[in-house]
Amino acid sequence: MVRVAVLGASGYGARELLKLLARHPHAEVTTLTTRQETRPHVADEHPWLRGLYDLHLENVPLDEVARRADCVFCCLPHAASAEAVAPLLDAGCKVVDFSADYRLTDAAVYQQWYQHEHPDPGRLGKAAYGLPELYRDRIIGANLVANPGCYPTSALLALAPLLKTGLASPEGIIVDSKSGVSGGGRSPKPVFHFPECNESVLAYGVGSHRHTPEIDQVLSDFAGAPTNVVFTPHLIPMDRGIFTTAYATPAQDGVTTANALATLREFYAGERFIRVLDEIPATKNVVGGNCCDLTVRVVRGRLVVLSVIDNLIKGASGAAVQNFNLIYGFEETTALR
Amino acid sequence: MVRVAVLGASGYGARELLKLLARHPHAEVTTLTTRQETRPHVADEHPWLRGLYDLHLENVPLDEVARRADCVFCCLPHAASAEAVAPLLDAGCKVVDFSADYRLTDAAVYQQWYQHEHPDPGRLGKAAYGLPELYRDRIIGANLVANPGCYPTSALLALAPLLKTGLASPEGIIVDSKSGVSGGGRSPKPVFHFPECNESVLAYGVGSHRHTPEIDQVLSDFAGAPTNVVFTPHLIPMDRGIFTTAYATPAQDGVTTANALATLREFYAGERFIRVLDEIPATKNVVGGNCCDLTVRVVRGRLVVLSVIDNLIKGASGAAVQNFNLIYGFEETTALR
Amino acid sequence: MVRVAVLGASGYGARELLKLLARHPHAEVTTLTTRQETRPHVADEHPWLRGLYDLHLENVPLDEVARRADCVFCCLPHAASAEAVAPLLDAGCKVVDFSADYRLTDAAVYQQWYQHEHPDPGRLGKAAYGLPELYRDRIIGANLVANPGCYPTSALLALAPLLKTGLASPEGIIVDSKSGVSGGGRSPKPVFHFPECNESVLAYGVGSHRHTPEIDQVLSDFAGAPTNVVFTPHLIPMDRGIFTTAYATPAQDGVTTANALATLREFYAGERFIRVLDEIPATKNVVGGNCCDLTVRVVRGRLVVLSVIDNLIKGASGAAVQNFNLIYGFEETTALR
Amino acid sequence: MVRVAVLGASGYGARELLKLLARHPHAEVTTLTTRQETRPHVADEHPWLRGLYDLHLENVPLDEVARRADCVFCCLPHAASAEAVAPLLDAGCKVVDFSADYRLTDAAVYQQWYQHEHPDPGRLGKAAYGLPELYRDRIIGANLVANPGCYPTSALLALAPLLKTGLASPEGIIVDSKSGVSGGGRSPKPVFHFPECNESVLAYGVGSHRHTPEIDQVLSDFAGAPTNVVFTPHLIPMDRGIFTTAYATPAQDGVTTANALATLREFYAGERFIRVLDEIPATKNVVGGNCCDLTVRVVRGRLVVLSVIDNLIKGASGAAVQNFNLIYGFEETTALR
Repeated sequence: MVRVAVLGASGYGARELLKLLARHPHAEVTTLTTRQETRPHVADEHPWLRGLYDLHLENVPLDEVARRADCVFCCLPHAASAEAVAPLLDAGCKVVDFSADYRLTDAAVYQQWYQHEHPDPGRLGKAAYGLPELYRDRIIGANLVANPGCYPTSALLALAPLLKTGLASPEGIIVDSKSGVSGGGRSPKPVFHFPECNESVLAYGVGSHRHTPEIDQVLSDFAGAPTNVVFTPHLIPMDRGIFTTAYATPAQDGVTTANALATLREFYAGERFIRVLDEIPATKNVVGGNCCDLTVRVVRGRLVVLSVIDNLIKGASGAAVQNFNLIYGFEETTALR
Repeated sequence: MVRVAVLGASGYGARELLKLLARHPHAEVTTLTTRQETRPHVADEHPWLRGLYDLHLENVPLDEVARRADCVFCCLPHAASAEAVAPLLDAGCKVVDFSADYRLTDAAVYQQWYQHEHPDPGRLGKAAYGLPELYRDRIIGANLVANPGCYPTSALLALAPLLKTGLASPEGIIVDSKSGVSGGGRSPKPVFHFPECNESVLAYGVGSHRHTPEIDQVLSDFAGAPTNVVFTPHLIPMDRGIFTTAYATPAQDGVTTANALATLREFYAGERFIRVLDEIPATKNVVGGNCCDLTVRVVRGRLVVLSVIDNLIKGASGAAVQNFNLIYGFEETTALR
Repeated sequence: MVRVAVLGASGYGARELLKLLARHPHAEVTTLTTRQETRPHVADEHPWLRGLYDLHLENVPLDEVARRADCVFCCLPHAASAEAVAPLLDAGCKVVDFSADYRLTDAAVYQQWYQHEHPDPGRLGKAAYGLPELYRDRIIGANLVANPGCYPTSALLALAPLLKTGLASPEGIIVDSKSGVSGGGRSPKPVFHFPECNESVLAYGVGSHRHTPEIDQVLSDFAGAPTNVVFTPHLIPMDRGIFTTAYATPAQDGVTTANALATLREFYAGERFIRVLDEIPATKNVVGGNCCDLTVRVVRGRLVVLSVIDNLIKGASGAAVQNFNLIYGFEETTALR
Repeated sequence: MVRVAVLGASGYGARELLKLLARHPHAEVTTLTTRQETRPHVADEHPWLRGLYDLHLENVPLDEVARRADCVFCCLPHAASAEAVAPLLDAGCKVVDFSADYRLTDAAVYQQWYQHEHPDPGRLGKAAYGLPELYRDRIIGANLVANPGCYPTSALLALAPLLKTGLASPEGIIVDSKSGVSGGGRSPKPVFHFPECNESVLAYGVGSHRHTPEIDQVLSDFAGAPTNVVFTPHLIPMDRGIFTTAYATPAQDGVTTANALATLREFYAGERFIRVLDEIPATKNVVGGNCCDLTVRVVRGRLVVLSVIDNLIKGASGAAVQNFNLIYGFEETTALR
């Protein structure tokens, strides 16, 4: 049984993680942390979980966390996350980090997009990027896994195979994503106030969203050449789900819907959580599960790839459990059916 | 042309009021107030209104408001409202007050439910209760109109005729109301955070909602005997609309769906904004307009009255414009089609 | 391993059942039926399930179903259900019936509310009513379980303890329920067309909903005296969840919120799926799980009980799996965490 | 007073048109048609309109329509529309056609995308394309106005100025649009069934949507060179609103957000219904009105234009009333505030 701690356990990602871990036969959650000093019971913080856990969220020092847990899921904000992860790794814990802190490999890029100096630059590039369908070998047995961003997951699963196989050009990629509101976190803000975002669509972070360099980094890795994606996220009046519409230019003559689909099918052969479809995907068919559904079309000479995930599961806590399974050598689908 | 000021112009009620007044041929909005000192343009505070008004929200002293306006729509919170209304009336303004401050006639009841002393007890009972279909005569030409609460509007229009005519007993009345989230105002709070209230229903204020004494006061007036309603409001994942299901005990033998419907039809004959239906109403059919749709059934010996309104229009700003029209003698439907 | 068939597998209840059964270690789904002749793959009928089952929906004769399955979950419409259930029981299958056919014990009441003669009146009263928290002893080892209606589940769990203990009177009970749209089934109809029911609330079946006699039958059983509930269901713009607000008259002096809560807590002590709360429940906290959250208040001398369930899980497929576990002696929570 | 008929008056477009016309001082609706023979009252077909009109929807022959109306709003499906419009024009009526029949100027293109021969090819190219901000001069006094499609309206208002002024290249344009469900019409279908499309996003008509050639035709006109847009519409779980994200390649060096914004502002100077914003638009700020809000950004060398409209108003009935005002020389904003 692996003893597990969840740092920063009051958000939606942590809640979904705890739902999944409640079904995991090899994980025992021992510790939930918060910066609040009120020690709320998990059932008061996350009423859905009432009866599944009898734990309080506590402000626990890191050395105590390290004593109580073999594996730490870190759901802290960026920067705060690296400050906790570094000593935990030093103390011998395995870490799955939900923040962006160990996703990027270049401290200068991190500083440019996150507007502050990286707290632990020495470890950049040494974490496994936790998208198993793209980097499984690096995740198996890793000590530190950088759990991917939700938008990058949907975009990378759509585009990496087409870049890897040379069907798509690294130039001129556009990623137009539509996300449910839970992606914005649990803190009330005017933009997430129900009467403001219900019955409405808007874009945000146009040209400035921090998932942009993360998408570029992985796509460049698969393309073998730099990409420079234009990424536009949109807020959709629904709880969960991301629909990504990615546009790319074919890098070869004769690219058709049929051979692009075949490329995706071949690339993802045997993957339990990737379902390549003939038909157009819908977010509803993946919400609540760990699958990414996707398809591709060639429209007027342009590749249009359509992918859907549950932002809180395949885009966060499901990926984290999948990574946990790979780190410890459990069956990869454990707790994810 | 009546010069109009709106006090506390940053909320949803004020926004809807300004939409309606933009179509009113006899109203000229001269002043919008706020307690903020940043003087936001109305188009920044209410983007929907961009191009309709070229005004800023200002922190204007009351004597200046009185110089600029003949009629003041007061959208301030309770207590703050009475503190503004009293000097404006003294300065000769007409006032339509959206707050609860002048709805109740008894200062002790006010203090019990609103937990503070009434700032202007001498005027209690002297305002017209602004539900034209029940109290039109008192509103015509009034100086001070207490615009009704949204829940009371839906409940009173449903029940008052049945009490007045003796079909329903004043005892044992239950009002079960379902409201869209805009009724909760514009300030972000956890309960109104989209991922919390979307795809969910909950009750709130069970046994303690401040609209309870307001419903009792008017129903008692129509019944000629005290009522003691059990009122349960619920929050529904939609922007606007209230659906009220009211249960009452017949006070006579032989009360049937047919004669209860006939009673409602007769009571509301000639009313433009009350539509008595054979079929079950739906909030969608009244949202965006000033109508109340309603019907009644006798089920197993109990009267079940079903009514719907737009909480922001018939339940707030539409009623306010209707009252404005009555105060000044304009055609009652002006700006409300 | 229990071999399982699902009759009428194209609806939402069947889909949720199959999600749950995919996690059940002792159930093997062998057969899915439909009256369609096109043999759709389950992944085309229910895209969410793609990859979990490799089965087609087939028009299978009942004797073949009986050969392939030990236990049959019957999701057919009423009347059609009894016509299938009777021969399956005769052939030795265990049956969990989602329809209303075996819920009522009186064929005349069935005929009155369902407007046709019962196809199998001899078995009425011999099925176990599948609400484990009220009738567990009868379900254990039963051959035929009548899975309860979704509204009755929410109403009975709220009221039965108060009637059983004599706190509430059997007279004057009102059940005001608010349901998500999935309760209306999967067939497109104008009332369920998105632009009609989104952003709207309406009541339906006022005084005529078929769950009324089912609620009365069980409440009367617990009260030891006939009830005559007024039941008003409402359609809410959300996928899933039922919020029931039940009003009852205390049958004793001195009934308080505190002792009513204590009564509920005592009645449901040890129940894993019933969570008695101090605070007001919200449907969101139970959707996706098999719990019923509930609380009670005394308001102006009236008992107000508030309960929430996921209509498709605790109100249908979760209850069915819970019943399956009881029939076969598996741990009651299997596949339901 | 212009006598008005609405053909095919049972859809959402007709309903919104009738809401607007109820406020129009110079229009009198005399006739509503339907192919049904049941003569439903407009209040039963469109409950929102109860009390505004006392008319029945009738199956009226075209010659009778022509006797009763000076101007006909035709809301029939394509092909059926042209078959009605042609004789009405011959009989001297003015026509605003909501269908696609007179939007395209080339009968071959029409046949390719609509899969049947055009019923009235001689009139192609002679109708005014009813987007006043782009073609006002042709609409003034026209006999036949082809009311634009909803998606084209949002895309054309975003892109035409940038093509006209040479900022954007006609090559490589991508239009990614997100629409509320009312755009799909009023007929129940599985894809519009509430529990299917609520809480979900999907794309549809990828590479085949019929608005594609309409967008190309007008953009080519403004660019002076053929365009070949990739158009991807998406279905969003909300009633109304279109958010269009359009991507274009600058055709000049030195294109910046600032000069692109300035170009839009200059192009639309004095337009009452176009609001060029510094900030990102949201559909909520235009729904219920006739405005198009838009902005533009240069992101990594690509122009990203963001525009929003109410698909049923600026994208249909509001444009129709605006066109009606231009045809007859009324103030262009009449009934549209």
